[in-house]
Amino acid sequence: MIQDEIRTRVRYGETDQMGVVYHANYLLYYEMGRTEYMRARGYEYSRLERDGYFLAIVEAQLRYHANTGYDGELIIRTRVGKITRVQVTFHYQVLDAENEVLLSEGLTRLACVDKNLKVKRLPAKMIEALKSPSKTNSITYR
Amino acid sequence: MIQDEIRTRVRYGETDQMGVVYHANYLLYYEMGRTEYMRARGYEYSRLERDGYFLAIVEAQLRYHANTGYDGELIIRTRVGKITRVQVTFHYQVLDAENEVLLSEGLTRLACVDKNLKVKRLPAKMIEALKSPSKTNSITYR
Amino acid sequence: MIQDEIRTRVRYGETDQMGVVYHANYLLYYEMGRTEYMRARGYEYSRLERDGYFLAIVEAQLRYHANTGYDGELIIRTRVGKITRVQVTFHYQVLDAENEVLLSEGLTRLACVDKNLKVKRLPAKMIEALKSPSKTNSITYR
Amino acid sequence: MIQDEIRTRVRYGETDQMGVVYHANYLLYYEMGRTEYMRARGYEYSRLERDGYFLAIVEAQLRYHANTGYDGELIIRTRVGKITRVQVTFHYQVLDAENEVLLSEGLTRLACVDKNLKVKRLPAKMIEALKSPSKTNSITYR
Repeated sequence: MIQDEIRTRVRYGETDQMGVVYHANYLLYYEMGRTEYMRARGYEYSRLERDGYFLAIVEAQLRYHANTGYDGELIIRTRVGKITRVQVTFHYQVLDAENEVLLSEGLTRLACVDKNLKVKRLPAKMIEALKSPSKTNSITYR
Repeated sequence: MIQDEIRTRVRYGETDQMGVVYHANYLLYYEMGRTEYMRARGYEYSRLERDGYFLAIVEAQLRYHANTGYDGELIIRTRVGKITRVQVTFHYQVLDAENEVLLSEGLTRLACVDKNLKVKRLPAKMIEALKSPSKTNSITYR
Repeated sequence: MIQDEIRTRVRYGETDQMGVVYHANYLLYYEMGRTEYMRARGYEYSRLERDGYFLAIVEAQLRYHANTGYDGELIIRTRVGKITRVQVTFHYQVLDAENEVLLSEGLTRLACVDKNLKVKRLPAKMIEALKSPSKTNSITYR
Repeated sequence: MIQDEIRTRVRYGETDQMGVVYHANYLLYYEMGRTEYMRARGYEYSRLERDGYFLAIVEAQLRYHANTGYDGELIIRTRVGKITRVQVTFHYQVLDAENEVLLSEGLTRLACVDKNLKVKRLPAKMIEALKSPSKTNSITYR
């Protein structure tokens, strides 16, 4: 299993009046993980869009196990799961960097579409990149 | 089945550069549905918090079927599913009000906690409210 | 002075761990005011975009006087200020609907641009609409 | 003039259907600059809150000069302006890291309050920290 890891910090605007990260914002942390996973393999999502492809989210699942608040440092772990001709599933874990407690885990399933949001095959180069190890010095778990 | 319905409109800031609602924002529409469901039964969530209880999201599942962009009018349908002593599951559908196309459907499972985020029993009055029909003139589907 | 008024409620996700609305979210309330101001005059912003024009924010000023939290009902007042050939300034007030306390007031100055973000003249029909009274039954202050 | 610099990247969820960063999100970039400015001087904002103080935004001013979209790398420059016994003003610039084009500049004025949102004097140690140079290896402009 190839798994990448990045770090970020909780912004004040991402918390809510319960004193913790608002649950929807984990989807933004997942997005950061996905973006960096692809960058680390030399096929940025922004390049995909310039080539006329988009990845539309068709499903998201999230579980929440623990909480953190403003300025909490997060570890975001990202790995690729099932890949079909037109879809790819990413799996994520978000941990509290201070104590490695699991805060949230989940997945997003994405479909490849063109600019009119019609389903298209994933570009072969992208599938190849998704399956390859990280090209960066960032930590890769196997 | 008791199901409530409210309407809202997509803000510009809720769209993304794909020209549609950013996927995480459906959790905010679900939240609106949940808030109004409880208000329509005389037990506002804000009152729950004043009583020292909070509902923490422990699970969210979302499916995305179609899209809309800025200023799209949305129908948000909310109903209550499984209720245990400490948890309640809400189910949602978000439709394009113009053509009643289903945009997203999903659920959130919430656990009752105190201000220290320790699990507590759901207040009996809240369970009663959750199971009752709407007290307002808003549309209720059965 | 023509001034429109709409109402909305604070979502949980719009609050922060200080227990109040996160300051950036007032720009979203201002946006709602602006959107409904234009709709009430028969020239929706979404129509403007379909005609190939966009309004890009070039300046924003906000003052914060008081606070409210989750589920607080808001009154959003919007009026149009200076209009030039290429820019329009909107002024806003956000009040707590419960006690009419002023929470925030501010302005946004918007420039008319085409899809390549080049400055264009505001369409004459839009200027006409901006200067006209509301066509709806919503409350209009003079 | 002491000025700190940090970098971040635009998330997809921070863009809007005009294909650029939604204007309200610059306040989140400003917040990141402010947070890191204080951390670099050994007085984290999260520590301030643990000590029973909060900084409430009382004014924000933003100008927008140019745009960037998803994945654009940003330079956020932060410096402290006027400091009174109860308020501090931060000034910000956000630049496109690729070409150093200025995207936005602005300020936020913050008032020191206690947990009941009553105005309090800024802690002496915080004022001292605000006026001191960065203790980190991050770039500091003078």
